[in-house]
Amino acid sequence: MTGKTWDKKPDIDIDRLKTFLAGLNGFGANPLTGGFNRPGYSDADMAARAWFEARLKEAGLAVRRDGVANIFGRYGPAEGPAILVGSHIDTVPEGGGFDGALGVAVALECVKAMKDAGFEPSTAIEVVATAEEEGRFGGMLGSQAIAGRIDRAWFETAGDADGMSLQTALAAQGLSPEDAFNCRRSPDEVKAFLELHIEQGPVLEHKRIPIGLVDGISGVSNISVTLTGRANHSGTTPMDMRSDAFAGLAAFATRIPAIIGDHGTDQSRITIGKVELEPNFPHTIPGRAVFSVITRDTDEKIQHALLQAVKAEIDAAAHRHHLSSEIKEKSWLSPVALDPKLQDLLASEAQNLGLSHIRMPSGAGHDAQTMQSLCPSALIFIPSRAGISHAPEEHSEWADILAGARLMLSALVRLSSHG
Amino acid sequence: MTGKTWDKKPDIDIDRLKTFLAGLNGFGANPLTGGFNRPGYSDADMAARAWFEARLKEAGLAVRRDGVANIFGRYGPAEGPAILVGSHIDTVPEGGGFDGALGVAVALECVKAMKDAGFEPSTAIEVVATAEEEGRFGGMLGSQAIAGRIDRAWFETAGDADGMSLQTALAAQGLSPEDAFNCRRSPDEVKAFLELHIEQGPVLEHKRIPIGLVDGISGVSNISVTLTGRANHSGTTPMDMRSDAFAGLAAFATRIPAIIGDHGTDQSRITIGKVELEPNFPHTIPGRAVFSVITRDTDEKIQHALLQAVKAEIDAAAHRHHLSSEIKEKSWLSPVALDPKLQDLLASEAQNLGLSHIRMPSGAGHDAQTMQSLCPSALIFIPSRAGISHAPEEHSEWADILAGARLMLSALVRLSSHG
Repeated sequence: MTGKTWDKKPDIDIDRLKTFLAGLNGFGANPLTGGFNRPGYSDADMAARAWFEARLKEAGLAVRRDGVANIFGRYGPAEGPAILVGSHIDTVPEGGGFDGALGVAVALECVKAMKDAGFEPSTAIEVVATAEEEGRFGGMLGSQAIAGRIDRAWFETAGDADGMSLQTALAAQGLSPEDAFNCRRSPDEVKAFLELHIEQGPVLEHKRIPIGLVDGISGVSNISVTLTGRANHSGTTPMDMRSDAFAGLAAFATRIPAIIGDHGTDQSRITIGKVELEPNFPHTIPGRAVFSVITRDTDEKIQHALLQAVKAEIDAAAHRHHLSSEIKEKSWLSPVALDPKLQDLLASEAQNLGLSHIRMPSGAGHDAQTMQSLCPSALIFIPSRAGISHAPEEHSEWADILAGARLMLSALVRLSSHG
Repeated sequence: MTGKTWDKKPDIDIDRLKTFLAGLNGFGANPLTGGFNRPGYSDADMAARAWFEARLKEAGLAVRRDGVANIFGRYGPAEGPAILVGSHIDTVPEGGGFDGALGVAVALECVKAMKDAGFEPSTAIEVVATAEEEGRFGGMLGSQAIAGRIDRAWFETAGDADGMSLQTALAAQGLSPEDAFNCRRSPDEVKAFLELHIEQGPVLEHKRIPIGLVDGISGVSNISVTLTGRANHSGTTPMDMRSDAFAGLAAFATRIPAIIGDHGTDQSRITIGKVELEPNFPHTIPGRAVFSVITRDTDEKIQHALLQAVKAEIDAAAHRHHLSSEIKEKSWLSPVALDPKLQDLLASEAQNLGLSHIRMPSGAGHDAQTMQSLCPSALIFIPSRAGISHAPEEHSEWADILAGARLMLSALVRLSSHG
């Protein structure tokens, strides 16, 4: 342990933490829905950043803003590597009040708690509020810029759902697009990245466990499938003379449990979320079904096996129902394993604090997966009520937030106590 | 047989028949698509009626137009009962050139052929061109008016897809809405109704049989089903914690063959034609699925059993997938059996002509089903290429048309030869 001394053991001030979260949520709030609107590089997002910068300065931290509006507030030695802790400030449209903002507020509260206790870290701690994590422009620009992982082809063509280009959005906020490629932190400068985030799923609540230690982020494959048959009259066409595109889709859909049973694990997810039929009239046999299949797993080999099985089952269902099939691979993201040593450290600190925990995958994407390419990274989950997120109903209990914040604080103390 | 004499055996003049069909299809043709647009009570529909009336007069028939613009052209005795023969002139939007119009053209050609041969019927024959069969206003107003089967509540509220009321549409063509209830023919006046129509399905073409004798019109039940689960994130929600509305729908859909196997016949049809998911995003588990189920059979008891089984399977699938289900019965039409004696007569005439035939149900609705409530009615099907109808690609071969028209002619000769 450290040779430094401090006045008292640092602890989270839950009321102060609430004011930090409420402060961030003062920006982009929609009182009609209870939702929050801070899309990346919107005015509300930028105003929230300015407000948070002021709080970091108020706390006596050395504040810096990089070329894509990531914000850093440094505590401890001005030189040498730092431990980064934080999350994102931006939201999806009509998002909840905890997704991202909570992790940013917890990061600041942890540093405030250290300062209150007179704790001075041997390794610097940087509170970070990342930019554009929610993918308004289809990426995670803030953490990708820090990790030096911006794909230039994507960057130059990225646009939002309304057709505004990323570069226009950056310029509109006074940012120079080319600076995005000058934000990379050297691996030597960054010892670790830690993020606290709401689970956005039902597992922790269901298991009544306050802490999830994320061992990996699931890979995601997104395919678009078109099954084509013949759109005939539902009355005049006998059952055995049909080429019913929806019947083929349904046959495939019911094979999903078997696909996972044969090729997957309890971390596998296969989802048909979007379906469009043509002509989509009650009295007409569907001539065409276009649908999405999202396949996820934390193990890349399994993810490949699942996708192969999905394709084979689609072809089999098409054949049985006299349909032609076309499969377009829209995207493939490989799974990311987070740092096992940081998980062990967090598990040990959780035990010290008397907090039960599980290791679990994350099915959603987070800054930590990008940061892992730069430095050892960790992601702490706390329970989400009913697993709901990206909606005004998103909620986490303050008792759970306190538990998660205490775990983050004790991990930071331990990590930063070494020179 | 009759005691009357005639110059020669009447026969169809296929070239003249082509001119009748082409004449009708001179109205509402869209040269860009090859489709026809004569919605009931449109200007094109009314102009086609006027043209056809002129052809009936030209043929020396006694012409009458009733209060809903059904047109009758009478040949033979001015007094006493008549045999009605015909079909409808109106089309669906962008419909084909054979649906309805062919049966009207064949009816006129049959009478022309009789006259050419010097055949004078003992029982009068009335060529009829019915109005608004395609259901622009949701009914079959022409034949319902003749049969005295107009539902007044429907009549007073009926409107088309653009919001125009039936009564406004009638008035716009100079018709007085109240007259619709004065069109009923007395059963004593009408000995039979015969209709030739394209099959609009693939059965005859597939079996290579030129003639279908329709034994009944399938009943149709239309239900709208809503399955409600929870629209969670497809990555963060484990498979066993989902309430996936689409998974429930797919599970039900794959039970359809078993439902028909257990409760139906080869005349049963169950179709899911329309599906809407919410939120319908690839990365979100569908929280709601709203879909149509159309159930048809020619036997009312079987139709009831099928619908009960459909409902039971929906509830079972909902239960298995942790969904709530709501089933709305939107409509129920009972099956109609057409007159067996007329089928026997047509079968015997087909045999005399050397035409192979099958008895078959009609999955689509036709004027004959309404007319059957007034008088013995018969429906002759001829093959449709690839079973396609209600589209510009609708087509029937002239060889098949000739066969069907000859059968109609010989049946009319036989039926009208008796006093």
